Amino acid sequence: MSSKQRGSQPGFTDLGFAKVDLDRQQRCGNAEVIFGEGKTAQQIISISQVLHDAGQPILVTRSNLEVYEEFKTRFPKAVWHEQSSIITGQPLKLIKKKKIDIAICAAGTTDLRVAEEAALCAQFWGLNVQRHYDVGVAGLHRLLNSMDAIKTARVVIAVAGMEGALPSVMGGLLSQPIIAVPTSVGYGVGQGGQAALHGMLTSCASGLTVVNIDNGFGAAYAAFRIIKGS
Amino acid sequence: MSSKQRGSQPGFTDLGFAKVDLDRQQRCGNAEVIFGEGKTAQQIISISQVLHDAGQPILVTRSNLEVYEEFKTRFPKAVWHEQSSIITGQPLKLIKKKKIDIAICAAGTTDLRVAEEAALCAQFWGLNVQRHYDVGVAGLHRLLNSMDAIKTARVVIAVAGMEGALPSVMGGLLSQPIIAVPTSVGYGVGQGGQAALHGMLTSCASGLTVVNIDNGFGAAYAAFRIIKGS
Amino acid sequence: MSSKQRGSQPGFTDLGFAKVDLDRQQRCGNAEVIFGEGKTAQQIISISQVLHDAGQPILVTRSNLEVYEEFKTRFPKAVWHEQSSIITGQPLKLIKKKKIDIAICAAGTTDLRVAEEAALCAQFWGLNVQRHYDVGVAGLHRLLNSMDAIKTARVVIAVAGMEGALPSVMGGLLSQPIIAVPTSVGYGVGQGGQAALHGMLTSCASGLTVVNIDNGFGAAYAAFRIIKGS
Amino acid sequence: MSSKQRGSQPGFTDLGFAKVDLDRQQRCGNAEVIFGEGKTAQQIISISQVLHDAGQPILVTRSNLEVYEEFKTRFPKAVWHEQSSIITGQPLKLIKKKKIDIAICAAGTTDLRVAEEAALCAQFWGLNVQRHYDVGVAGLHRLLNSMDAIKTARVVIAVAGMEGALPSVMGGLLSQPIIAVPTSVGYGVGQGGQAALHGMLTSCASGLTVVNIDNGFGAAYAAFRIIKGS
Amino acid sequence: MSSKQRGSQPGFTDLGFAKVDLDRQQRCGNAEVIFGEGKTAQQIISISQVLHDAGQPILVTRSNLEVYEEFKTRFPKAVWHEQSSIITGQPLKLIKKKKIDIAICAAGTTDLRVAEEAALCAQFWGLNVQRHYDVGVAGLHRLLNSMDAIKTARVVIAVAGMEGALPSVMGGLLSQPIIAVPTSVGYGVGQGGQAALHGMLTSCASGLTVVNIDNGFGAAYAAFRIIKGS
Amino acid sequence: MSSKQRGSQPGFTDLGFAKVDLDRQQRCGNAEVIFGEGKTAQQIISISQVLHDAGQPILVTRSNLEVYEEFKTRFPKAVWHEQSSIITGQPLKLIKKKKIDIAICAAGTTDLRVAEEAALCAQFWGLNVQRHYDVGVAGLHRLLNSMDAIKTARVVIAVAGMEGALPSVMGGLLSQPIIAVPTSVGYGVGQGGQAALHGMLTSCASGLTVVNIDNGFGAAYAAFRIIKGS
Amino acid sequence: MSSKQRGSQPGFTDLGFAKVDLDRQQRCGNAEVIFGEGKTAQQIISISQVLHDAGQPILVTRSNLEVYEEFKTRFPKAVWHEQSSIITGQPLKLIKKKKIDIAICAAGTTDLRVAEEAALCAQFWGLNVQRHYDVGVAGLHRLLNSMDAIKTARVVIAVAGMEGALPSVMGGLLSQPIIAVPTSVGYGVGQGGQAALHGMLTSCASGLTVVNIDNGFGAAYAAFRIIKGS
Amino acid sequence: MSSKQRGSQPGFTDLGFAKVDLDRQQRCGNAEVIFGEGKTAQQIISISQVLHDAGQPILVTRSNLEVYEEFKTRFPKAVWHEQSSIITGQPLKLIKKKKIDIAICAAGTTDLRVAEEAALCAQFWGLNVQRHYDVGVAGLHRLLNSMDAIKTARVVIAVAGMEGALPSVMGGLLSQPIIAVPTSVGYGVGQGGQAALHGMLTSCASGLTVVNIDNGFGAAYAAFRIIKGS
Repeated sequence: MSSKQRGSQPGFTDLGFAKVDLDRQQRCGNAEVIFGEGKTAQQIISISQVLHDAGQPILVTRSNLEVYEEFKTRFPKAVWHEQSSIITGQPLKLIKKKKIDIAICAAGTTDLRVAEEAALCAQFWGLNVQRHYDVGVAGLHRLLNSMDAIKTARVVIAVAGMEGALPSVMGGLLSQPIIAVPTSVGYGVGQGGQAALHGMLTSCASGLTVVNIDNGFGAAYAAFRIIKGS
Repeated sequence: MSSKQRGSQPGFTDLGFAKVDLDRQQRCGNAEVIFGEGKTAQQIISISQVLHDAGQPILVTRSNLEVYEEFKTRFPKAVWHEQSSIITGQPLKLIKKKKIDIAICAAGTTDLRVAEEAALCAQFWGLNVQRHYDVGVAGLHRLLNSMDAIKTARVVIAVAGMEGALPSVMGGLLSQPIIAVPTSVGYGVGQGGQAALHGMLTSCASGLTVVNIDNGFGAAYAAFRIIKGS
Repeated sequence: MSSKQRGSQPGFTDLGFAKVDLDRQQRCGNAEVIFGEGKTAQQIISISQVLHDAGQPILVTRSNLEVYEEFKTRFPKAVWHEQSSIITGQPLKLIKKKKIDIAICAAGTTDLRVAEEAALCAQFWGLNVQRHYDVGVAGLHRLLNSMDAIKTARVVIAVAGMEGALPSVMGGLLSQPIIAVPTSVGYGVGQGGQAALHGMLTSCASGLTVVNIDNGFGAAYAAFRIIKGS
Repeated sequence: MSSKQRGSQPGFTDLGFAKVDLDRQQRCGNAEVIFGEGKTAQQIISISQVLHDAGQPILVTRSNLEVYEEFKTRFPKAVWHEQSSIITGQPLKLIKKKKIDIAICAAGTTDLRVAEEAALCAQFWGLNVQRHYDVGVAGLHRLLNSMDAIKTARVVIAVAGMEGALPSVMGGLLSQPIIAVPTSVGYGVGQGGQAALHGMLTSCASGLTVVNIDNGFGAAYAAFRIIKGS
Repeated sequence: MSSKQRGSQPGFTDLGFAKVDLDRQQRCGNAEVIFGEGKTAQQIISISQVLHDAGQPILVTRSNLEVYEEFKTRFPKAVWHEQSSIITGQPLKLIKKKKIDIAICAAGTTDLRVAEEAALCAQFWGLNVQRHYDVGVAGLHRLLNSMDAIKTARVVIAVAGMEGALPSVMGGLLSQPIIAVPTSVGYGVGQGGQAALHGMLTSCASGLTVVNIDNGFGAAYAAFRIIKGS
Repeated sequence: MSSKQRGSQPGFTDLGFAKVDLDRQQRCGNAEVIFGEGKTAQQIISISQVLHDAGQPILVTRSNLEVYEEFKTRFPKAVWHEQSSIITGQPLKLIKKKKIDIAICAAGTTDLRVAEEAALCAQFWGLNVQRHYDVGVAGLHRLLNSMDAIKTARVVIAVAGMEGALPSVMGGLLSQPIIAVPTSVGYGVGQGGQAALHGMLTSCASGLTVVNIDNGFGAAYAAFRIIKGS
Repeated sequence: MSSKQRGSQPGFTDLGFAKVDLDRQQRCGNAEVIFGEGKTAQQIISISQVLHDAGQPILVTRSNLEVYEEFKTRFPKAVWHEQSSIITGQPLKLIKKKKIDIAICAAGTTDLRVAEEAALCAQFWGLNVQRHYDVGVAGLHRLLNSMDAIKTARVVIAVAGMEGALPSVMGGLLSQPIIAVPTSVGYGVGQGGQAALHGMLTSCASGLTVVNIDNGFGAAYAAFRIIKGS
Repeated sequence: MSSKQRGSQPGFTDLGFAKVDLDRQQRCGNAEVIFGEGKTAQQIISISQVLHDAGQPILVTRSNLEVYEEFKTRFPKAVWHEQSSIITGQPLKLIKKKKIDIAICAAGTTDLRVAEEAALCAQFWGLNVQRHYDVGVAGLHRLLNSMDAIKTARVVIAVAGMEGALPSVMGGLLSQPIIAVPTSVGYGVGQGGQAALHGMLTSCASGLTVVNIDNGFGAAYAAFRIIKGS
């Protein structure tokens, strides 16, 4: 690689392959999160080092066990969260306040990978999480059974693949903010999550908002933006 | 136009621009139905004449008032059904048996155009029709309120645009055959009915079947095939 | 039309072509809003009558002047809002509190049709609205000039067509909830709003949420859900 | 994972990652079927245990040999059906009534994977199955040769990839219900089954219904819904 | 318009807005044909004048009555062919040889617009045309009834909308070259002719070739290329 | 409309519905151009007034005759350019230098609408334009005949609809910058210009760049950026 | 597997998983060809045995070396053709007539896999083949250099990936039948061959016909249909 | 393989599987570059040999380590550039002029693979390269910090995946030519780079041009065309 200015700049540190954004927490409320997909273990470690040196917390999404093995040689306290493919720089301290902040609902068992990405990120940022999994509309009684609990939440995240009908039904029963997360679960015309995404965007229920397919992280971040300002 | 053999052939009558299929009723259970879109009034009348001469009933779908005006100069008893854009050769005799055969459910008011195409065709073929309109999932109590009646039907047709979640919810509550009809109602990613179609095909409820977007006629025909063999 | 039970039911009134949902306000926080597209003037008036008789406010979106002319013969106080194609049952009382609730930002002049749908709905539900129009990223100084005001808002709605980059840039500068609304403004690959929609869903800024193309109403409703719970 | 209520609930058993729907048989006519794709062997075994304890039959679709090896250590009577990738909790008892219920037709040899999924599910639910394989329209005499047998069936399932013309031709020759199943067999524009799906949905034959690409299970379930009510 | 060299060039005449290709007949076997869509009447007349002055025949496709009215003030012998939207510079002399060259088959009445474009172009270039219209696969006996005649043709053009299954069935019954023409007839997923196009391209019958949607002209030209070289 | 700060701001003038960017010329080399589509005549006039008052030139693209009629009541010297649907605030002074700057090539007559948008914009910004129209690859001698002239240009703009092969062929014959402009000319799979766009993006010729479908303005602007820096 | 009638039927042999079409040669001119993709080695061998016993030639496309190894234990004379992934039952006898029948042109080296599938199939059916490879339009002189030879061919097959411009250019220079074969060569918007396919279908050259992406076999078969009838 | 003329031809060398274009440098300014994807190591070496024998430089893109290992046995001075997957026939001599020619900007770390393909190709052709990596719009201060340097460049290449907003923002701040390169970085609706591509084509900033997804080579070539003519 060639002639590039590296080192500290106003608001970021330049590593050549990355300019780590150190004042994001101040601007947006949360420190930079490392999106692991497509980055080498060494790149992830270098970025983490910058965050660590600046006293900021480390959260790596879309990672894998192999990266983690290399990662923990440098950050021995780091923890691997298998279901959500997340590395956190420190073990997660779960909050046990009475008031529950977010209800994360998932339509089916295969949606858990995405739901847990949302749940873990939310917990990392200090939010309390209710989990309601496998409450898809094909067995409505399972959803209705959880409804009293869900109504106490400040924000609802509804995760679903296939036709993605779960947020539509919830939207007609609740007055809270609902963030819909389509997943790539399904096959045929549902493959890739487009059917769920389009279903959520065209929902007959009013006032749902939607994030990208499989973007559990983004849903948690959006919930954080809502709760932070409350 | 050129050298073509016209007139009666085994099983059909050749008009040059059309070969009217006169033994379809015997093969498939129903006489040929005239799909009006893209045909001139004169073509529709000529085909109708062949059916009439063969003693078969006349049903024209996807027509319009202008065609009807010309049509009734030749077939004065013909009736125009505005909401479904259908011409029938005769006024429809509604069946009032106790046993109800088909329940036609529509998610919203703007889906009625399609639902009524299904309803009218079904009635034309001698089936009894329950109508449950505006029972979309955004107000679940409206659907649940109709559920006892729907459970008595032999076949259910579920019509919905936008995200098309209605058949998914019904599929989890019923054991009858459910024919899902996506409609082109909606805008943005839902425009054209693709979102509803894909949602119905990837439904988490088991054993739904689907017809083309806005194809109320086809859904009624499929219901007829089921009931005829019962 | 046929044998249907009409009249009052638990929680809704059945008009045959529509089941007006009278307890939606209680469940979801806002009364039913009439989506005008594809409904006849007469259907809109009948539904409005039910809402009016139940003491609920009337809001019709995606309407047109012709419908309005017929509408006001029945509801003489109704007002036509041209830029947003909205009918309200009553003149809108604008709130002039000091605290501003929503900032609605639009990238270009041709996005105003959608931005004003959001703005008017929000005002109808009692929210205060800042308007920042024509702040697209091609002239960044225009957006930066409005930033101090926008930072005081509780929720931000960012409306953009074409490539839809506005919410991405705002997402990196703000910590509030941001609801991105793609519009169908553009041509070529942007036609229909798909490019803006996809751009917003894949934004490099974290925690944006998105609604359907041109869905100003839905964005306002989502903002209402957030503010109502604050 | 966190604070979740597990155990028996009205109508389902909560395993945390799944809420097994125990009254589906009563509502929809068939017990819950386990969709194997994306579930771990351990998850499949846990769900099967719940069904088994409730005296319900076990059927796992889209599984693989590796899962089966682990599965049979817990359920030693379980059988692996290779061509359809299905695990059944018990060996299948084939019905040999005179009256044949379903005719399953497949256009080509490579469609058998899907056709057999349909056939096996149907047999699992007690239906009798005729198999007519490799009867695609490129050699019409093969199909016509089977037609007398097919006409005796109560329901027809027509499985085809590539252009998916088989159900169109059959629709013009039969009066029974026909459930069309597009398969992902093909390449180029046919890849993924979209061409077959769209062909079946736009068929010139009347009253066909369609399920998702490769959804042999769904077709069998739809046939079951029809026959159950006959 | 600006500084452009107009007038005669080697092999073409430059009109500024068009360079009329005068040696195409020599290179490709047929004189330039004027594609009428998007050209003004005046542009069409100017190009026709160049062809006329060079002693070449005039054929305008995708035209309309309004253009024709203006056209015939300059070329009084010109003829308007309504069903195919074609203008020919001279009345067409139909060839009545015994040997029939092309069989043009159309699946339905609404496909005639395209079939007649093919038929008229073929006749313009001196080919003899058999017409077999409304022989879609939903009534197979109609097609089979024409099969003896079709087998005598040198080339077959098969025109179909919706699922476009006609060429697949014909491909399995014939050994001649078959040119498949998808049409934009249909609605829902078939709208625009994509379903027919994809069906024809993925046909299970071997050795079909396909032209663009609604391209009757192109199919006739391809047939001409085949016959010219025989 | 509501409480908005209007009037002069640093670098722009705020009209409420538009913030006219007055220092764009300094930043990007050209003054703001008014995209006429979707703007009212009154909006266009107001924006033009701001530009005029700031001593900047007025160029309106994608306009129409009706807007122009209203426009010239305020700006009597304004000129309507029909083929390109452009309004210029002043008559265009054509430059007659010897050195030719841009060669604009169009594949067919129906592509002229787009080619002329490019040509007029380029001339408006002081560039000299060669026009080579109807040089599509179906008659290669027409293109080769123009090649000597084209080779003298500093930048080449290649406009083509349908399959868009023109820039590929030119790319293999020239060493200059080539900006490819796909047009929406065509039908069937070419409709909308997607086929041409994709063909240009995947060209086997190296170093072509592409703008949006029908974006003649953008191509001219890109050419301007290149020439300005030479 | 279950109760199926196997054995000889009129015109085909039923193997249960396949009905081998033995009179295809009589109907369509060529014996059944085995499409290897998705079939097991054992299925391919069984079908080949039926063809062999009927004295028909064996041709397997889309196969692989592993299948061939098993295949030749049963048919020791069988030959593996690596570049085209074809197995022939016998070594190919190349025809060396003076008169050349087919010219197969390929735009680039990576298109050879498809071009060779066409070439080998054509040779298998007794046609003589010219090969002109790497004659893409980015270096027009390479194509023009081959043009004299190509003009002597009876039929031309033009194979190209990426933007697929080769057949367009050839169509303007030749009067023979041209069969265009898009390939899946390319990346980005060209990935999968859609760009090439669409380009060929919308070609500005008249009378091209097109087959499915990568379908070299189909192009050869279409050429065979043309030549057989000459 | 069969009867093909190999060896030297006017302007190219025929290897049978490839016709190496030896006068491309003269026509287009740069020698032929070998696109490695889909070519065997042996094919790449043979083509390289022809270039080498003609005294032309060797550049292989989209290669891999395995090919390189075989390649260097024949060309021992060849160098493998891992991040860009490029082989150069010789070590690259970096130019250290004062005047910087190209600024290559990348939005994120995972876009470097594409950015480096552009950078290396540009350096291979003698251009000087500035690198500005990880300057995506989510942290605008990082981009603004580099702006003074970027303004000195003759041409700007802007590489971005996901929503691809970087070139839009840069287009509003710069007057140079900007070549936008979408990358396939992202997931969900961004997968494959379509969202970035469409965003760049519909950018609200004027005069951007775009190349195919991941086409760093093409962007560098386009920059070369611009600079060569300056």
